Amino acid sequence: MSKEKPLILITNDDGYQAKGIKELTEAMKGLGEIIVFAPDSHQSGMSSAITTSFPIRARQYHQEEGLTSYMCSGTPVDCVKLALNMFVNRKPDLVVSGVNHGSNAGISVLYSGTVAAAIEGCVFDIPSIAFSLCDFTPDADFTTTKVVARKLAQKVLKEGLPKGVCLNVNVPVGEVKGIRMTTQTQGKWVNEYQRSKDGIDREIFWMTGNFENWETENEKNDEWALANGYAAVVPVKIDMTAYDLIRELKEWEL
Amino acid sequence: MSKEKPLILITNDDGYQAKGIKELTEAMKGLGEIIVFAPDSHQSGMSSAITTSFPIRARQYHQEEGLTSYMCSGTPVDCVKLALNMFVNRKPDLVVSGVNHGSNAGISVLYSGTVAAAIEGCVFDIPSIAFSLCDFTPDADFTTTKVVARKLAQKVLKEGLPKGVCLNVNVPVGEVKGIRMTTQTQGKWVNEYQRSKDGIDREIFWMTGNFENWETENEKNDEWALANGYAAVVPVKIDMTAYDLIRELKEWEL
Repeated sequence: MSKEKPLILITNDDGYQAKGIKELTEAMKGLGEIIVFAPDSHQSGMSSAITTSFPIRARQYHQEEGLTSYMCSGTPVDCVKLALNMFVNRKPDLVVSGVNHGSNAGISVLYSGTVAAAIEGCVFDIPSIAFSLCDFTPDADFTTTKVVARKLAQKVLKEGLPKGVCLNVNVPVGEVKGIRMTTQTQGKWVNEYQRSKDGIDREIFWMTGNFENWETENEKNDEWALANGYAAVVPVKIDMTAYDLIRELKEWEL
Repeated sequence: MSKEKPLILITNDDGYQAKGIKELTEAMKGLGEIIVFAPDSHQSGMSSAITTSFPIRARQYHQEEGLTSYMCSGTPVDCVKLALNMFVNRKPDLVVSGVNHGSNAGISVLYSGTVAAAIEGCVFDIPSIAFSLCDFTPDADFTTTKVVARKLAQKVLKEGLPKGVCLNVNVPVGEVKGIRMTTQTQGKWVNEYQRSKDGIDREIFWMTGNFENWETENEKNDEWALANGYAAVVPVKIDMTAYDLIRELKEWEL
């Protein structure tokens, strides 16, 4: 295998057995040498959590020409960190995460393990893309998402991405009209808990809720794109400093 | 108690028994009515992780005039979400998180549960501040941090914070020369894992590593402020969209 072949690292948050990561791996085939390094269990909603108090483990479970696959006991970000620190012999050219079963549009960027893995790739200064399909069922149809993923991966392998920015891509169910560069919808989840009881009548709370969109139709944000049949691509910046506020805050007398 | 008294929600990621949150609670006394709603165990490095597959529990463990304290089985973000959804009877005027035992400067913003709790307060459109002391020992001296925390809390209660921005405050050990508004230091952790063996000789990996600062002395970023004896305040934006890139990405032919 030529040393010039791109190296692609694939991970997710639904675990190595999820259909989404298998389909994403299929979609990347032929674009380069592939390493899958994915959680051995469900890690949804893990954001950029890292494991510091426990050891983590990893083992190879598959190998074929151009593809080596590992499962890891850590979070999605642990997977990216461990793979890049200890399991690759050169810096990957691309990190792709997903395909997540379920939307990661809007504010989900903060909570998603899928997006966090792409953010972590970006921390390592590697062009990185998170992919999600707006269908959380285990046997979701990824046909269209695979086309979108391959197209974007090819483009990013060719063009790169600016330092400190990764892409969060969400794909609607059904026919896709096109790929739209857009913004993260502002809003938040509401009615987030359901009060219930455990088996011996003690109070428990289950996470639930629905997304409240704070923006109007005019915004043409990621939720708008998805609702109108477009795959939504949001460039995500990993430096969260609010630069435009520093001057104002400096005027505070403290 | 007057209804006009500010309501202050306090949480952390080191757990309700940590010295840091007790000291922060002391520092907030007199500024308003206080609700402590903190994890019942260590939740360091949990970022904005949320608990979706398990129920979470919460119970009151302390009450006195103006102060009610709960412990919760969830992550720091679960704590903020559950408190605000189910345990407060009015919207708090301020969310404070910490004081974390150990620095959360630079890129730690991505991984810290302490900072994530402030980000979550900000999601609820409540002025929010994360506090960390650059000393990870359990019996660290929070004397100076308490002064800084009270001063900033008073200021934020008076001035508010712009929508979508919270503050990440780090305090150096020892004498503090002043409070400096600054930026998140760019860089990353390197050599992040130590290879080891478990009790039956299987390979494990422990997170470790050291921070590699990618910026120069001239940047006067948060690491610079801390190294020079200042408390470092970074305004953190919760909308991670890289707006300035969208036009460029729209030119991609896809």
